[in-house]
Amino acid sequence: MTSVTTLGHMQLALLEAHAAAARDEVPVGAVVVGPDGIVLATAGNETRALCDPTAHAEVLVIRRAAEKLRDERLTGCDLYVTLEPCAMCAAAISLARIRRLYFAASDPKGGGVVHGARVFNQPTCHHTPEIYDGLEEDAASDLLKTFFAARR
Amino acid sequence: MTSVTTLGHMQLALLEAHAAAARDEVPVGAVVVGPDGIVLATAGNETRALCDPTAHAEVLVIRRAAEKLRDERLTGCDLYVTLEPCAMCAAAISLARIRRLYFAASDPKGGGVVHGARVFNQPTCHHTPEIYDGLEEDAASDLLKTFFAARR
Repeated sequence: MTSVTTLGHMQLALLEAHAAAARDEVPVGAVVVGPDGIVLATAGNETRALCDPTAHAEVLVIRRAAEKLRDERLTGCDLYVTLEPCAMCAAAISLARIRRLYFAASDPKGGGVVHGARVFNQPTCHHTPEIYDGLEEDAASDLLKTFFAARR
Repeated sequence: MTSVTTLGHMQLALLEAHAAAARDEVPVGAVVVGPDGIVLATAGNETRALCDPTAHAEVLVIRRAAEKLRDERLTGCDLYVTLEPCAMCAAAISLARIRRLYFAASDPKGGGVVHGARVFNQPTCHHTPEIYDGLEEDAASDLLKTFFAARR
């Protein structure tokens, strides 16, 4: 599934992550692509700006895409995100019926896909996307490391 | 922790659940109470009305309370909800730094607190509230059963 197109979508998510860093938000970006390959929504973290602990890039991009489609289910849509989703975002991805999840860097400390809660591996998870990881991993990981190193 | 006040807060959450049912939304309601015991926000599920898969009562009430306090952390606040939170909502409760979580009915099929992802029991969970369950359990459970029975 790694094509020029999927790489381009992850690079768009990375642009959103860079924009988040410039706003002093944790640099994570996300993109939702419709079944026809058209970008439906993009988002970066906005927890600080919005005073909203749920305003992770994945939650925002799902909300924006669902609003655009006027449908609470994003059936056939794919989500690209620069960091392994946390448990909240992984469960939101399941609730939204996302078809494919692409994430860049893994997150041993806060991830909820291949770490911690492993949301998609639970019997209480009623929809599991296809999962592809590692696309643009170094770029996403370096951005996060630089951001946090500058704040220590 | 079961006092007249905590019972009253759960009954307020139940009123929100009944209002959600009347809107043809899954009947779950939630309330956030500030450190001083004042109700900061109430919400019922609005996934259908808002076309937003993340618009569970808990996410909405956290967002409303955080907006009111102009702070992404609800330190010292308590959350009451009529159903065991799913993994998304449990993780949102942790991110919001909720002090105490009260839930009424348990949810073996979709819960993420004492079932499935058990979000608060993972090493990736960085804040765990005190948890109290069973308050007004029968009323919350009966409301859900009646709602789904009428739609089968």
